Amino acid sequence: MVQKTNPGNYFEDFRIGQELVHATPRTVTEGDVALYTALYGPRFAVQSSDALAGDLGLPGAPLDDLLVFHVVFGKTVADISLNAVANLGYAGGVFGQSVYPGDTLSATSEVIGLKENSNGKTGVVYVRSVGRNQSGEMVLDYVRWVMVRKGDPDAAAPDTVVPELPGTVAAADLQVPAELDLAVYDTTAAGSPHLWEDYAAGERIDHVDGMTIEEAEHMLATRLYQNTAKVHFDQVAANQGRFKRRLIYGGHIISMARALSFNGLANGFKIAAINGGAHTNPTFAGDTIYAWSEVLETFELPGRADLGALRLRTVACKDQSAETFPDRTEDGKYGESVVLDFDYTVLMPRRVS
Amino acid sequence: MVQKTNPGNYFEDFRIGQELVHATPRTVTEGDVALYTALYGPRFAVQSSDALAGDLGLPGAPLDDLLVFHVVFGKTVADISLNAVANLGYAGGVFGQSVYPGDTLSATSEVIGLKENSNGKTGVVYVRSVGRNQSGEMVLDYVRWVMVRKGDPDAAAPDTVVPELPGTVAAADLQVPAELDLAVYDTTAAGSPHLWEDYAAGERIDHVDGMTIEEAEHMLATRLYQNTAKVHFDQVAANQGRFKRRLIYGGHIISMARALSFNGLANGFKIAAINGGAHTNPTFAGDTIYAWSEVLETFELPGRADLGALRLRTVACKDQSAETFPDRTEDGKYGESVVLDFDYTVLMPRRVS
Amino acid sequence: MVQKTNPGNYFEDFRIGQELVHATPRTVTEGDVALYTALYGPRFAVQSSDALAGDLGLPGAPLDDLLVFHVVFGKTVADISLNAVANLGYAGGVFGQSVYPGDTLSATSEVIGLKENSNGKTGVVYVRSVGRNQSGEMVLDYVRWVMVRKGDPDAAAPDTVVPELPGTVAAADLQVPAELDLAVYDTTAAGSPHLWEDYAAGERIDHVDGMTIEEAEHMLATRLYQNTAKVHFDQVAANQGRFKRRLIYGGHIISMARALSFNGLANGFKIAAINGGAHTNPTFAGDTIYAWSEVLETFELPGRADLGALRLRTVACKDQSAETFPDRTEDGKYGESVVLDFDYTVLMPRRVS
Repeated sequence: MVQKTNPGNYFEDFRIGQELVHATPRTVTEGDVALYTALYGPRFAVQSSDALAGDLGLPGAPLDDLLVFHVVFGKTVADISLNAVANLGYAGGVFGQSVYPGDTLSATSEVIGLKENSNGKTGVVYVRSVGRNQSGEMVLDYVRWVMVRKGDPDAAAPDTVVPELPGTVAAADLQVPAELDLAVYDTTAAGSPHLWEDYAAGERIDHVDGMTIEEAEHMLATRLYQNTAKVHFDQVAANQGRFKRRLIYGGHIISMARALSFNGLANGFKIAAINGGAHTNPTFAGDTIYAWSEVLETFELPGRADLGALRLRTVACKDQSAETFPDRTEDGKYGESVVLDFDYTVLMPRRVS
Repeated sequence: MVQKTNPGNYFEDFRIGQELVHATPRTVTEGDVALYTALYGPRFAVQSSDALAGDLGLPGAPLDDLLVFHVVFGKTVADISLNAVANLGYAGGVFGQSVYPGDTLSATSEVIGLKENSNGKTGVVYVRSVGRNQSGEMVLDYVRWVMVRKGDPDAAAPDTVVPELPGTVAAADLQVPAELDLAVYDTTAAGSPHLWEDYAAGERIDHVDGMTIEEAEHMLATRLYQNTAKVHFDQVAANQGRFKRRLIYGGHIISMARALSFNGLANGFKIAAINGGAHTNPTFAGDTIYAWSEVLETFELPGRADLGALRLRTVACKDQSAETFPDRTEDGKYGESVVLDFDYTVLMPRRVS
Repeated sequence: MVQKTNPGNYFEDFRIGQELVHATPRTVTEGDVALYTALYGPRFAVQSSDALAGDLGLPGAPLDDLLVFHVVFGKTVADISLNAVANLGYAGGVFGQSVYPGDTLSATSEVIGLKENSNGKTGVVYVRSVGRNQSGEMVLDYVRWVMVRKGDPDAAAPDTVVPELPGTVAAADLQVPAELDLAVYDTTAAGSPHLWEDYAAGERIDHVDGMTIEEAEHMLATRLYQNTAKVHFDQVAANQGRFKRRLIYGGHIISMARALSFNGLANGFKIAAINGGAHTNPTFAGDTIYAWSEVLETFELPGRADLGALRLRTVACKDQSAETFPDRTEDGKYGESVVLDFDYTVLMPRRVS
């Protein structure tokens, strides 16, 4: 009998230019939205209220962009990172068509880089993954690179191809829904009077609040995204590993940090781009997550007087308040308490003159 | 840079007559209903079945009234009780228009009373909060009072205004959906043959079952309601506090007690009023909640031969069966095991003659 | 006053031929589907994607068959197994009309067997339970037998009636949706190239992955199904019992094993029958569940060239990998690590010739 289970791809199984069509298309629903709310407590008004979203020209409240990210990411795991040692980074992430309850998401990836590590046991795989809705419209397009084990240590190393990683997504490449009209944006309903003009590059915001992670929560989340990477679920296997604990899916931390960032960035309702990101330390159940953000840039959007963009860096730390802005040290290394360094671009309404 | 985060209001920030428009309108959905079911296990048939609700003249299964309460309450937290020491009580709560999946809820509050405490460090704020649907119809109107810290201990005390608290909501003030017709009410489907006529003032019912609370559950619930009071979420902060534990949101206990009360009050499917309520002791993960109820009054409803009202007092206790009806002692104090004393009015079908 | 709470039925309360109409009809929704996904992480494509299900002729993604099972089963608990000592077995389970979000499920049971145990304290009750949708169409029909306590030890033993238990559900009795057309079935989207022809009787598959159970998860699940058997929820009561732990609802383990079985049986998207099943050991929070399956039979379906049936036996074990296929020993007994032995029939697309 042929083996029926999926062993995942090992480093030597990937080829430059290879196209992977990922399994399990997924219709996202109001049920997913409710669970996302219960898991993180987001309060961004556009994603919370059909009525308010309708006032802004949208057909209803769109899904949180990170929920879209997690669903698309989850699909890639079985083909890309089942044998991964570490998820190394993200770049060039652009959110496309807004996603609404009832949409069906699927994902494909292209291998754009391969580099075997000098130890001969692992290699770095660079993929560009694209999530699409049921009409084939792009909803998310991003690059990630991940360190993957070799299945056969004697497999020959491929020619090294390190792709030029996209830098910060440019203003012209951000996709703003054409139907979105912020003329009637209600800052009271949104929970903050601070609009795009009120933020300046270099500004740092401590998001104040903290949230402690439970095992049940991160597993519910990760399964909701149909992400089956076993490090998140199997305590018996974890007991044999380095940490003796189930690892939290890194995206769970991104969503926690984003929800915490409402307190200070309430009007930054839409993530338009993920410029980069790194999970700088593992997290486990029992950790308490805090977050702070730095405004890296503020920029206008072509053809839009009603909203602008903020490029942000949100840093999450654990078991330590973000009051002191825990960060890289001067040598570029992260202390143990810093668990996420996430560079992304949000859209925020401008003050109507 | 102006501070971007919300510090919440301190006692000295409130003014009599002040109107607060709370943030984050929220469309409630079938996803919220499913989570509410998973969190508490309610079995009231009208809220569980679109088909049965339709037979009674409703457009579908309405949301559990307490889910509406929690969503409205959650909105008030950021403005009213972010700096609260204790949630002291509720009164005069009337449920209005029924809420269905797809409705969008928002909330406002008016400050109706202020009384600085003699210690000069805290004061009591009385607010009347109103939840409305997307058409502006009232869905819930209630008074609560809460002890709030002063931000500046030297702030002058306001003139004391203690509002006359509403007493028990009168029969004439209860809102019964006009379209509701109980002629075909099915007691078998509802799970109990006991109708309004079968209950008498003074009757006590031990609801028998107990439910142990987990950290993940109360946090999922509280985030679902977009209630971000930090005492529920941050274990690191809790370690510095009096209890060393994350506090359970009091409303979580109300919903647990209500779900437990199905066993004995299965036909009391709709909460029409919250006459009063107090969280008499804190609760924590690991506590096991039991409940008992006393029928305080039974009364007819104007113009309705098909249903009547029961004014109930449901008492929740922890780590102790409700078999012995744990209660206030003669000096009016509550033992440590009593965690909720909730006075409310439910509608129950009458026996068709 | 008459007792208002439901004491459940004791062994002596059952009569052969008795019809029980169970309470609380339940409209199932996209919210339930999302929670089911979060609880178990199923990836069967037909249940995951409205778009893919539509391509196959269905009106949308049907509910997972086991979610239907749990909802129907949950309704029977208050009347059948509130005073149960043990759930002994299932047989002859046939899934009928597919269930979609918006359908309302209700359940009835008929008592088909009674046998008092020789200790005079308990007896075995055999029931045939039927779940129906809002149109009265059968969605699930199955037999289970359960050991129930006597309430009055002096109650006379009934005449013993042990029904002939249905054997494996025959091919002719399986219900395949007429509108289902697998001509365009997409194995890439479904996550596996292995179709009905690729499986053979006797084949064993280790499903590889493990999942650790948390208290919050099994309680959320069990309440979602409105199953209120107290052994699952009350730690204080459990402290007085044999295990000192809350017992996991056996159906939770079935759903975990089924979700794990995707890895090896990805195209077996629909459960058509439950031929038998036993919970061979109790499970508790903290247990890590693994599963393996054996193909018992492969058979064709009358009138269908596009799909066939696999009769499977899926065995779940705890805290021990399924790599060694833990099983009954030669004396027919199960070791402590084996927690489920489940015999069921799935439909799987055939290779289009």
